[in-house]
Amino acid sequence: MNIERREFFKKSALMGLGLASAPNVVAGASDLNHEDRVEKNRPEILFFDVNETLLDLTVMKKSVGKALGNKTELLPLWFTTMLQYSLVSTVGRQYSDFGVIGASALQMVAANNGISLSEEDAKEAISPILSLPAHPEVKQSLERLIKDGYRLVSFTNSSNKGVETQFKNAGLIDYFEERLSVEDIGKFKPHADAYDWAARKMGVSSNDCLLVAAHGWDIAGALWANWRAAFISRPGAQLYPIAPTPEINESNLELITDKLIALK
Amino acid sequence: MNIERREFFKKSALMGLGLASAPNVVAGASDLNHEDRVEKNRPEILFFDVNETLLDLTVMKKSVGKALGNKTELLPLWFTTMLQYSLVSTVGRQYSDFGVIGASALQMVAANNGISLSEEDAKEAISPILSLPAHPEVKQSLERLIKDGYRLVSFTNSSNKGVETQFKNAGLIDYFEERLSVEDIGKFKPHADAYDWAARKMGVSSNDCLLVAAHGWDIAGALWANWRAAFISRPGAQLYPIAPTPEINESNLELITDKLIALK
Repeated sequence: MNIERREFFKKSALMGLGLASAPNVVAGASDLNHEDRVEKNRPEILFFDVNETLLDLTVMKKSVGKALGNKTELLPLWFTTMLQYSLVSTVGRQYSDFGVIGASALQMVAANNGISLSEEDAKEAISPILSLPAHPEVKQSLERLIKDGYRLVSFTNSSNKGVETQFKNAGLIDYFEERLSVEDIGKFKPHADAYDWAARKMGVSSNDCLLVAAHGWDIAGALWANWRAAFISRPGAQLYPIAPTPEINESNLELITDKLIALK
Repeated sequence: MNIERREFFKKSALMGLGLASAPNVVAGASDLNHEDRVEKNRPEILFFDVNETLLDLTVMKKSVGKALGNKTELLPLWFTTMLQYSLVSTVGRQYSDFGVIGASALQMVAANNGISLSEEDAKEAISPILSLPAHPEVKQSLERLIKDGYRLVSFTNSSNKGVETQFKNAGLIDYFEERLSVEDIGKFKPHADAYDWAARKMGVSSNDCLLVAAHGWDIAGALWANWRAAFISRPGAQLYPIAPTPEINESNLELITDKLIALK
């Protein structure tokens, strides 16, 4: 571990303990923060989150919006409720399929808007999650990373069967040497145990892992678990203001790929 | 433990393991479920959640809505994001004051709606959370329960200082023999450890505790931790469809009080 890296992890640890000042901006670190935390050596494995990070969720707006009486503005509330309840399950020492939790969340949001939705209708409304297209820059970026010698692994809250179907439908199945699902550990990201498990599963140390994700909570969880991280600031995605900032923060995977390839 | 109770907990456990069918309705159990799970003996202690359960959050709509460019419809998204990130912290083995997490969540929701909000402005916008009024039926109901011999304890995700201020401002400070905050254990509800800790702190078994709450996630967490529960189905509150159903489910605290007083 070089000095810059050691400083980076020291800072992260201090911030976690509330002993160092947290960044007070929402998206992106200040130039100084970025400078401080830059990681110049290559991580051993790149882990990719799936939903929103690689796959474009916007096509779900239609079906989910329809189930919510065409209130497409409720899509973020549904997705956030799904994420909240995935963690409700985890901290309650329970586990359900991410799709089942998503359908439950949709039923709750619908009921709060005066719409009674059966479990079956809710599942039908979110079924397009299995056939989302990849964001336009994804395939070319993954190809460039592989050509450049990187090892790629997917790491998702979707079930094993779910992510396999998603990748088949999006044409992404061959880009990853391994598909990891939290289903195998029974705790949703960003539980620290999930990152620990993924690193151990791939036989590498936590600080040799770098997560690429378009969710502030995933980036925060990875950094707290001593991983490195690259944030894709897609529309609707924000870093968690009181978490450490990742070393890379770009608006799409192509720009992140440029930065990763520049690492020695 | 009588037979009905034993059956109730057996059922809950089976459901948690996914071995029994889950209820497939959103709010409220079917009559059959209610009948099956009725608890006729008295719990030793009633634990009350605070925000929304006892205190009326709707007065925050104005200040939070203003911070979000008068989009008051974003209030549920902000509150859900705050709850999500409280659990993001917990599963990441971190702890921040609930108010700090609430301000961060507000910054994120604002940024996603094109509004740049400073940490200070976000904290200012949610500061009315400290001076919320009690829901109209709360004081009389708490008085009836105390007169009837019940022991009342508050149990909140707010900080110790926060809930003290809230109760002073709402005139609720004298109704509870103890104010418990998750701050003391450093894990937000509905983490199973938080309910275990609260029961131990009060010197009672989990199944002698009954939680009164207006949040589906809190009810689910309590039941999963082998507590009993009464759900206040306030507007905007839904039970978690795939969790066990509580023995009491009423639209306000007065009706719940009637049911509690009827227990022998």
